[in-house]
Amino acid sequence: MARLLVIHGPNINLLGKREREVYGDTGFEALNDAIARRAADRGLALTIRQSNHEGELVDIIQGAAGAADVIVINAGAFTHTSVAIRDALAAVDIPFVEIHMSNVYKREEFRHHSYLSALASGIVVGFGTDGYLLAVDGAAMLAARRGE
Amino acid sequence: MARLLVIHGPNINLLGKREREVYGDTGFEALNDAIARRAADRGLALTIRQSNHEGELVDIIQGAAGAADVIVINAGAFTHTSVAIRDALAAVDIPFVEIHMSNVYKREEFRHHSYLSALASGIVVGFGTDGYLLAVDGAAMLAARRGE
Amino acid sequence: MARLLVIHGPNINLLGKREREVYGDTGFEALNDAIARRAADRGLALTIRQSNHEGELVDIIQGAAGAADVIVINAGAFTHTSVAIRDALAAVDIPFVEIHMSNVYKREEFRHHSYLSALASGIVVGFGTDGYLLAVDGAAMLAARRGE
Amino acid sequence: MARLLVIHGPNINLLGKREREVYGDTGFEALNDAIARRAADRGLALTIRQSNHEGELVDIIQGAAGAADVIVINAGAFTHTSVAIRDALAAVDIPFVEIHMSNVYKREEFRHHSYLSALASGIVVGFGTDGYLLAVDGAAMLAARRGE
Amino acid sequence: MARLLVIHGPNINLLGKREREVYGDTGFEALNDAIARRAADRGLALTIRQSNHEGELVDIIQGAAGAADVIVINAGAFTHTSVAIRDALAAVDIPFVEIHMSNVYKREEFRHHSYLSALASGIVVGFGTDGYLLAVDGAAMLAARRGE
Amino acid sequence: MARLLVIHGPNINLLGKREREVYGDTGFEALNDAIARRAADRGLALTIRQSNHEGELVDIIQGAAGAADVIVINAGAFTHTSVAIRDALAAVDIPFVEIHMSNVYKREEFRHHSYLSALASGIVVGFGTDGYLLAVDGAAMLAARRGE
Amino acid sequence: MARLLVIHGPNINLLGKREREVYGDTGFEALNDAIARRAADRGLALTIRQSNHEGELVDIIQGAAGAADVIVINAGAFTHTSVAIRDALAAVDIPFVEIHMSNVYKREEFRHHSYLSALASGIVVGFGTDGYLLAVDGAAMLAARRGE
Amino acid sequence: MARLLVIHGPNINLLGKREREVYGDTGFEALNDAIARRAADRGLALTIRQSNHEGELVDIIQGAAGAADVIVINAGAFTHTSVAIRDALAAVDIPFVEIHMSNVYKREEFRHHSYLSALASGIVVGFGTDGYLLAVDGAAMLAARRGE
Amino acid sequence: MARLLVIHGPNINLLGKREREVYGDTGFEALNDAIARRAADRGLALTIRQSNHEGELVDIIQGAAGAADVIVINAGAFTHTSVAIRDALAAVDIPFVEIHMSNVYKREEFRHHSYLSALASGIVVGFGTDGYLLAVDGAAMLAARRGE
Amino acid sequence: MARLLVIHGPNINLLGKREREVYGDTGFEALNDAIARRAADRGLALTIRQSNHEGELVDIIQGAAGAADVIVINAGAFTHTSVAIRDALAAVDIPFVEIHMSNVYKREEFRHHSYLSALASGIVVGFGTDGYLLAVDGAAMLAARRGE
Amino acid sequence: MARLLVIHGPNINLLGKREREVYGDTGFEALNDAIARRAADRGLALTIRQSNHEGELVDIIQGAAGAADVIVINAGAFTHTSVAIRDALAAVDIPFVEIHMSNVYKREEFRHHSYLSALASGIVVGFGTDGYLLAVDGAAMLAARRGE
Amino acid sequence: MARLLVIHGPNINLLGKREREVYGDTGFEALNDAIARRAADRGLALTIRQSNHEGELVDIIQGAAGAADVIVINAGAFTHTSVAIRDALAAVDIPFVEIHMSNVYKREEFRHHSYLSALASGIVVGFGTDGYLLAVDGAAMLAARRGE
Repeated sequence: MARLLVIHGPNINLLGKREREVYGDTGFEALNDAIARRAADRGLALTIRQSNHEGELVDIIQGAAGAADVIVINAGAFTHTSVAIRDALAAVDIPFVEIHMSNVYKREEFRHHSYLSALASGIVVGFGTDGYLLAVDGAAMLAARRGE
Repeated sequence: MARLLVIHGPNINLLGKREREVYGDTGFEALNDAIARRAADRGLALTIRQSNHEGELVDIIQGAAGAADVIVINAGAFTHTSVAIRDALAAVDIPFVEIHMSNVYKREEFRHHSYLSALASGIVVGFGTDGYLLAVDGAAMLAARRGE
Repeated sequence: MARLLVIHGPNINLLGKREREVYGDTGFEALNDAIARRAADRGLALTIRQSNHEGELVDIIQGAAGAADVIVINAGAFTHTSVAIRDALAAVDIPFVEIHMSNVYKREEFRHHSYLSALASGIVVGFGTDGYLLAVDGAAMLAARRGE
Repeated sequence: MARLLVIHGPNINLLGKREREVYGDTGFEALNDAIARRAADRGLALTIRQSNHEGELVDIIQGAAGAADVIVINAGAFTHTSVAIRDALAAVDIPFVEIHMSNVYKREEFRHHSYLSALASGIVVGFGTDGYLLAVDGAAMLAARRGE
Repeated sequence: MARLLVIHGPNINLLGKREREVYGDTGFEALNDAIARRAADRGLALTIRQSNHEGELVDIIQGAAGAADVIVINAGAFTHTSVAIRDALAAVDIPFVEIHMSNVYKREEFRHHSYLSALASGIVVGFGTDGYLLAVDGAAMLAARRGE
Repeated sequence: MARLLVIHGPNINLLGKREREVYGDTGFEALNDAIARRAADRGLALTIRQSNHEGELVDIIQGAAGAADVIVINAGAFTHTSVAIRDALAAVDIPFVEIHMSNVYKREEFRHHSYLSALASGIVVGFGTDGYLLAVDGAAMLAARRGE
Repeated sequence: MARLLVIHGPNINLLGKREREVYGDTGFEALNDAIARRAADRGLALTIRQSNHEGELVDIIQGAAGAADVIVINAGAFTHTSVAIRDALAAVDIPFVEIHMSNVYKREEFRHHSYLSALASGIVVGFGTDGYLLAVDGAAMLAARRGE
Repeated sequence: MARLLVIHGPNINLLGKREREVYGDTGFEALNDAIARRAADRGLALTIRQSNHEGELVDIIQGAAGAADVIVINAGAFTHTSVAIRDALAAVDIPFVEIHMSNVYKREEFRHHSYLSALASGIVVGFGTDGYLLAVDGAAMLAARRGE
Repeated sequence: MARLLVIHGPNINLLGKREREVYGDTGFEALNDAIARRAADRGLALTIRQSNHEGELVDIIQGAAGAADVIVINAGAFTHTSVAIRDALAAVDIPFVEIHMSNVYKREEFRHHSYLSALASGIVVGFGTDGYLLAVDGAAMLAARRGE
Repeated sequence: MARLLVIHGPNINLLGKREREVYGDTGFEALNDAIARRAADRGLALTIRQSNHEGELVDIIQGAAGAADVIVINAGAFTHTSVAIRDALAAVDIPFVEIHMSNVYKREEFRHHSYLSALASGIVVGFGTDGYLLAVDGAAMLAARRGE
Repeated sequence: MARLLVIHGPNINLLGKREREVYGDTGFEALNDAIARRAADRGLALTIRQSNHEGELVDIIQGAAGAADVIVINAGAFTHTSVAIRDALAAVDIPFVEIHMSNVYKREEFRHHSYLSALASGIVVGFGTDGYLLAVDGAAMLAARRGE
Repeated sequence: MARLLVIHGPNINLLGKREREVYGDTGFEALNDAIARRAADRGLALTIRQSNHEGELVDIIQGAAGAADVIVINAGAFTHTSVAIRDALAAVDIPFVEIHMSNVYKREEFRHHSYLSALASGIVVGFGTDGYLLAVDGAAMLAARRGE
């Protein structure tokens, strides 16, 4: 059974409480429940982590070495500023899906660049919280391909 | 029954014949068959179009007004150069999913910018031909939300 | 009697059907009728062409050599991306008026640059569909000056 | 009867005396006479002002509040450097036509940017002194639309 | 009684110990005492926090939701690099004053850009430690306006 | 008794008459009255000047040599375009506070740069008309420090 | 016998009719005759195609797969704007020579960049119509090397 | 007898009173006296003008048409910001020498660009107040060449 | 006996486990042992710290005030993104050597800029893990110079 | 009999000894022999020069005045950095062919710009050592045209 | 008696033989004679050197240490490309005048930047060969000031 | 016994005579003596060369092929401008250490870029003349690794 690690970056824990016109009404708990159901449907063993701390996210990714087969990551604001997270993902060398709920290309210029994209196996942008379901599906595909 | 229009841009008809290290071994026919199966699974009425001509793609998109509920588009090279396709998508105002099989962020700098992204409801990048399946799923979600 | 060729670029055929907050309510037919009346008032023999295809627009411009004395062109999206249309206009060497209905300077940054402007005898921007009437008048002035 | 204010910026008073290869042979007086005839033809009450002083132009625009219904402005060199004139036009909120006699896109790079364009209702570039006649016509159209 | 949260970013705890030619001689304790006196004078209930950790600052801002009516923040170095702090401030939607003791425009180019400024209700730059007093006063004004 | 010179740049005389969504409802007279009361409270002898003319503002600043101990300046649009005003401030070498009522970082890109900031003793941005009161307070602090 | 495909892009069909100061007096027919003689001299089986349509050029290049051993292409204006033609050349993987009659480096800045050059086996710029003869010779060399 | 017009721009009237480490100790009167002596030595009829107003400088230059044979201009801060002064110099078409006392290339980046240089017959930078003497000599040479 | 603090930034703890083609086969423990031997050889009292947390690295540097005479720092990814670490180093004012094992100039563009370099006493790039030995030697030289 | 001067810039003397994957296996002697045969075939009197010294190359070009009718130059690295060689070629005003063996557009960004191209009569890029033969042929064409 | 070293850079030895529309008709010998007469008039002991070799120019400047009191240098093309000459001038620390005969600001963009200007005591641009006379005069002034 | 070639670029021969605040007091002779001692200590056979001529440095590097096992190079000003030296180092393919005595990142912007760094095996910046000792040590390490 393939192991999936879902990582949420800074401020995503506020989902449903902040900027609803951007992120929609689904709360963080509800989102994680939906992710859990989808992972179960896809036959994936799931772990979910969230942190507002760049260093902690690096620790989590480092800890995934040997413990996860595929990663889904929404690095939030760190997407645009963190070389450390990029390096951690490169170091552990686990295939990962980058996900953003909002369409970053409709927002500020500085959100158009991601330090992670060049290393990602797949990227899902927009679709709101539904994007996570697609990302989990994509991760399942990646895990399956690996397993072949 | 929601209607899905899948649009393939220039050179995608060569799939499986060209640059396999970039695009994989699946042929264009096989890809379209897979898309058709997925659309059927999701209860979507499917039309598929391909063209190497920017103007024809504009014509196809204009023709979708009143004839499609959601679009999946891989504009290929025109992604990076065509304001005309962007304008056509804006004009018909049908929600669309932008899809790229290769991870454009691993490739030349000029492929990192898309004229379509700012208008897309969702974007799927990487995942190879599997990305189309995720895009069809995403399109189904968009159609469902619209239908609500 | 001077001969005027009016060229509409991509998506302008949707006028009145798309983005009315940008382009107003006048339809494409009505616009062309108004242009025809104005050209008649100014004593100009009129031909109107529209295409969504860059290559076809190049063909049209090439065909104008010896067949038109002045051109009014709204190249739409190709304004910002087409060196080929610029080259065709340079090749036939017919004085032309560049026209845009919307104020492109209120819109996306990439609409602020035109490949055509440096070759134009005159440019009319904004004014909505009325701008075409001014452009026809300007074209009549150019034809008159040439005729002197 | 709608009131039109025509504003000439720096060095336009030298018209006909300077750089004739750029601006043509018509003198400043003759230009203003032609403008006056056109305004009369269009049923507009006309005021014409010229100044080489940015501050004076700001004063003139401020003074137009309640005294003019539409403005035609050739801000000359200040087009490219004056945020103060832009702010004055924004402040009085009178619809205006921006006009340039020469085709600025054939000239130095720094003349390709205008601080005024993003606020203009319409823009007329090139056409030499004839451009003013088109601008007056355009202003008449704007005044008419306002009057509706 | 309005609640004010003052947040000090990285290295500000060294005040009075480092680079005195830039930041002056007042120590961190003394600064906080002065802030406390000013807040008391302005009838504000005060909390002061400092951290060198971006993630902790995000946590602090998140924690302010429902617990503070106005924020004064000197994000120090994170001003120029942290999208996460910007997003946290946007998420909790509490009016805030951005403050810098040194005149950042006299310093390195990279200190001229702030990720926070576009969201701030007010900004105070320069004035040394006195700037905090002005920022507290400004915060009091913001709280008063809110309270109306 | 320290002498304060408050300088208003172009279009600020229209306060309360223009763009109220940006600048609020307070009129120019009312603002100056409020400034006068604050200056009196702070024990400062006050002079207020306004001009739409860059050259006149330069004259005013030159005239402040020996006649003012501290300056509060809102150079308006000239903030972004005038090296001459910068040079005048550098020449007379009087400490000054730069003030903007609106948050320039929420507005057009060209308003994000100030020619004055690098020379200012303090800067106050946003806060609407209240910002002037903070600026006067800041000026009083500067005068006091000088007087020590 | 190696097969050579010569492709002319937009407006090259006007050769000898347009901008003679840039392109010389040789007509398009005469050029093709000269190319044919040279190809015959070099023992190459020749096909010549011209189109003003980007999409048609893509079609022509796709059609060359298995039908041509080497390509000489003057993509004209599309040199500077077409990623689609670049992708088509990459897809068919036939060695090609890029040719320009005029010295593009003496012309507008936007003509200094070519989307094709990075994929070309050889590039010939300047030399007027004679450049085609050198390009045919170069193509013969490439075909010979391949044939070894 | 050739007529020389020397124009001083903004803040140059403060010479000797401001920033002595940049501009030296010579006062404005003394400088003008030295210029007068040099002009007399070179057989030039001299007029000297100074203004802090861009518009007035434009007026002065316009007034030089037919009244001066050569100009020496230190446009001060307007060197870097005034297209209007550039246009005035172009309009009157009198040969001119651009002069700066300080070495602008040792100062802020924005002082490295001059709107006037491309039109100047000669440029003298640095040398302090002595530069004016060289500029007068250069003007005499220009006048002599013209007179030939 | 001079005190040396060696600081390792994010992901360096994975040395020998990640990207061996970039960083070589030496493990993190082995590296630290080698550093310890070299420090002993050079007569330096050694402390080694590693963290993936930017804030913790700031804390460590702040803690070095009065506790270390010289620092060797490999800030890893934070080299390119952390103004906070730069500010901490500036604040404690301890001479430091910046070290990178890989040649950052052979890698992505964003690794070519370091926020630390402008403050470093010396920089060692490339040489793999051997670079640390040179850095320790360099630190010993710095400490010796200080001690003179 | 027309006289041809072939100039090789820095490091080209190492041909066949260095970077064979870029430049091929032909040695420098062999290349010059091939050039000599081609020149003889084309009826050109040949001189070949090589230098690693920019100044010497300038001397060689200056010496060509009156001694050569056409030049073929591969300036090697100086192509991208030498204005002096450009100026020398402009000064002697001899038509020249610029040649590069490797396809510079496949290499580092800084090799995409040439100081010589804007002055060249023709440019040949890629083709390896064969490119020299095309360049000699092109030179013969230029000499023939001149001789007409 | 002050010692003046005049240095001519690459291609200046061709003066009067090349590009006369840019540099005029005076030959190199005649120029040096004129310089010699002027230096004599100003009581300066003169040495003149010319080289097309950057390294030789560095040698010449190094050799000026202790042998010249002031330098006049026209570094020609090296002005825009040579950091080595800049460093040599900085190293010997002799005041120097930078001179250009043509107005570099009317020429290619790359001639607008000089590596030498920021170190020069004075700069003379334009004036043709007469500029050298002004430069010698300027050098005499510098020598005189030094001698005081 | 490994052979070390140390190369000094332009102006380094002036060490101890120029800009002592930047480069320290050690003279060029003394530096070379120190290098010689260090090389001897490390068991390296040493050759030292210096030149102010770029071409000569290229010759020296070319001459090192087969004659040196490792290079230490301080290319001085040519670091920032010489592609020729870069190409020579690439051509001979000898591992080299790049060294700069001053911290180039504290100096002018144009000194922050090196054409050599991307090819270097190691880089040492800052440390003054001591940096050479570290560079020699680093070279010894490189030679040792090669020898394994």
